[in-house]
Amino acid sequence: MMSAAQFESLESILEKHIPPEELKEVRRRLFGKELKKLEFPSDAIEAAKERDFELQGYVLEAALEQLRKPFIVRVGLVQNKIVHPTDAPVIDQLIFLWLHHSDLLVQLHKITALHRRIGEIVEVASMCGVNIVCFQEAWTMPFAFCTREKAPWTEFAESAEEGHTTRFCQELAKKYNMVVVSPILERDDIHGGTLWNTAVVVSNSGNVLGKSRKNHIPRVGDFNESTYYMEGNTGHRVFQTQYGRIAVNICYGRHHPLNWFMYSMNGAEIIFNPSATVGELSEPMWPIEARNAAIANHCFTCAINRVGTEHFKNEFTSGDGKKAHSDFGYFYGSSYVAAPDGSCTPGLSRTQDGLLVAELDLNLNRQISDKWSFKMTGRYDMYAELLHKAVQPDFKPDIVKES
Amino acid sequence: MMSAAQFESLESILEKHIPPEELKEVRRRLFGKELKKLEFPSDAIEAAKERDFELQGYVLEAALEQLRKPFIVRVGLVQNKIVHPTDAPVIDQLIFLWLHHSDLLVQLHKITALHRRIGEIVEVASMCGVNIVCFQEAWTMPFAFCTREKAPWTEFAESAEEGHTTRFCQELAKKYNMVVVSPILERDDIHGGTLWNTAVVVSNSGNVLGKSRKNHIPRVGDFNESTYYMEGNTGHRVFQTQYGRIAVNICYGRHHPLNWFMYSMNGAEIIFNPSATVGELSEPMWPIEARNAAIANHCFTCAINRVGTEHFKNEFTSGDGKKAHSDFGYFYGSSYVAAPDGSCTPGLSRTQDGLLVAELDLNLNRQISDKWSFKMTGRYDMYAELLHKAVQPDFKPDIVKES
Repeated sequence: MMSAAQFESLESILEKHIPPEELKEVRRRLFGKELKKLEFPSDAIEAAKERDFELQGYVLEAALEQLRKPFIVRVGLVQNKIVHPTDAPVIDQLIFLWLHHSDLLVQLHKITALHRRIGEIVEVASMCGVNIVCFQEAWTMPFAFCTREKAPWTEFAESAEEGHTTRFCQELAKKYNMVVVSPILERDDIHGGTLWNTAVVVSNSGNVLGKSRKNHIPRVGDFNESTYYMEGNTGHRVFQTQYGRIAVNICYGRHHPLNWFMYSMNGAEIIFNPSATVGELSEPMWPIEARNAAIANHCFTCAINRVGTEHFKNEFTSGDGKKAHSDFGYFYGSSYVAAPDGSCTPGLSRTQDGLLVAELDLNLNRQISDKWSFKMTGRYDMYAELLHKAVQPDFKPDIVKES
Repeated sequence: MMSAAQFESLESILEKHIPPEELKEVRRRLFGKELKKLEFPSDAIEAAKERDFELQGYVLEAALEQLRKPFIVRVGLVQNKIVHPTDAPVIDQLIFLWLHHSDLLVQLHKITALHRRIGEIVEVASMCGVNIVCFQEAWTMPFAFCTREKAPWTEFAESAEEGHTTRFCQELAKKYNMVVVSPILERDDIHGGTLWNTAVVVSNSGNVLGKSRKNHIPRVGDFNESTYYMEGNTGHRVFQTQYGRIAVNICYGRHHPLNWFMYSMNGAEIIFNPSATVGELSEPMWPIEARNAAIANHCFTCAINRVGTEHFKNEFTSGDGKKAHSDFGYFYGSSYVAAPDGSCTPGLSRTQDGLLVAELDLNLNRQISDKWSFKMTGRYDMYAELLHKAVQPDFKPDIVKES
């Protein structure tokens, strides 16, 4: 039997074995309309090869309109392995010094091996014309919540507004004129030093636009996150950028249709879903949920997952009746972009670091909304009332019984 | 290029070309855990062959528990073509006389060619041990709403409680000890003779348990249904049967996550989604939406679609900028059952009449709910409030702008 890690991608297996005519129909059924591939400059392709990450690009087109011009945006989804083993001292991960000149002041920035890795991928994203880049959940650290241990993991937490990772992202944003979505472990020192699972949104101007916290916290198997931070209190805010209105639905929130819905009701045109999830648990759900959200809400969704297996020093249980063990399972990558018309890009590899570039025409959202009209036909006033009743302690489900 | 109708099924193409080892991984990724096939008696298999419909069966298992016994139910999903051309006079479709003896009274039932077709499929369902059978949307008639014409289509409408189709289903239910879900065009004579798109639920005792009306009415392309009937007023009732609590989410309601959600909050363990939908419009969404609903709501969902192309006498426009034409497009069948753990059965054929039998262990719902806890982590009190605000005329979306 193949190991989970060996299986490169669904799409590569289909392509290898199925003859072109039938492949076309399989793809239509599985992925919707046929997507054009993006052409990239040869130096970008070369750099991706040298830096050992996969580079893929697709175009998600809309129809031409008479009054509105196409609203073309390129998003970049980054998936990656951690660079150092999890038991490397936190301080040892700060291996790079980076000199930066700004406002006539020379600042000394500490950046980690992971920051360096992300930096070299974002440089290629820039060569590929990416306007908005999003990294995976808690990208600055191992996904260590399976351990239930606080030390040393909470040392990776930083201020969303002033941490060195946010400063690093501000540099990237300014340098490449790119909006950066940076999901980190946040420490909020002005509210008692609490931890949060937070995405920082940096404008292409380099200013911090704001932050968005994870709304739904898992209590599933190795995802012991509720012992580290609580449900987010930043609501479903949407960030107006030069490249469209974006929102960030972090990881486990993709299982909650109402969460996607509220981002969309606030006007999100693209909803990013930075995640960390493993094969045994969620892989068959992965291609379903973000894609369903794009369809149901007439918007684009971008699902991002990390790659590789992360081993930890002390064994732990996964709460599944099996023996204690020392790894989280296999993070299967497979990042993809889904469109409101039900089409989606192939996923990135299950095994390699990668950058997925998708060129979106945001006009598609309104075109599909006018065609399918899910918001118009949604009867939300009725559901507001029903939901209000359903949460009451004396709620009586409407069950018809034979008399 | 293959025509839409030639492509038999996604699953058959995968099986034909992909070597076993890789096929296993493709299936895991696409359909979740490997499902056992159901064994059927040879006379059932023979009868299905003779009567020219596909017969498939799968087992969707749950873990054994210490206190609860497995709750095993077999559902049957029926998909079929219409039997007569659409322009056959309505009266000509009443071609069969059926003598029935009950309570010492001989009644004369008129049954149509479609009733007869369904009767012979349900007989096989009974041989396969089916406990609950569900037919496709508006199964007693062509899906004629594309025509915008009222005559003669509204002549197919019947009383949900006392129409000849309901009587026919009551006979089936009693004869085979089977719950029957029968979606028809309803005429409600005690409320002004209005039309509704309605599913009648008949208990295995033969009594009418109740009816459930389509909650969301499409205004999409050829789906001109809003000129025939309004949004349902029966809420999200759930029917307690001997074989579990069931609900019926008719067709277009599958695009509305809140609709699925409310059936689930009322306690539905199995939600049927009898549909009529065509390839050009919805095929890439088809495997996504009902399956997402099963995952999001910790329940089973059963998606049913009709088969074939229905031609009409007068040309009509599809509202898509293309020339008027006389057919609705290709109804692609592909009925399937999805489980709360993200697994699903292969779809029935895209081209043939068929019966899909799935053996469900309803214990799986609570097992998956306890594992994934989407309801526990759903924050529904927050969403009740947010939804209430979102429908107000002065709703202000939460949009963060650069200052």
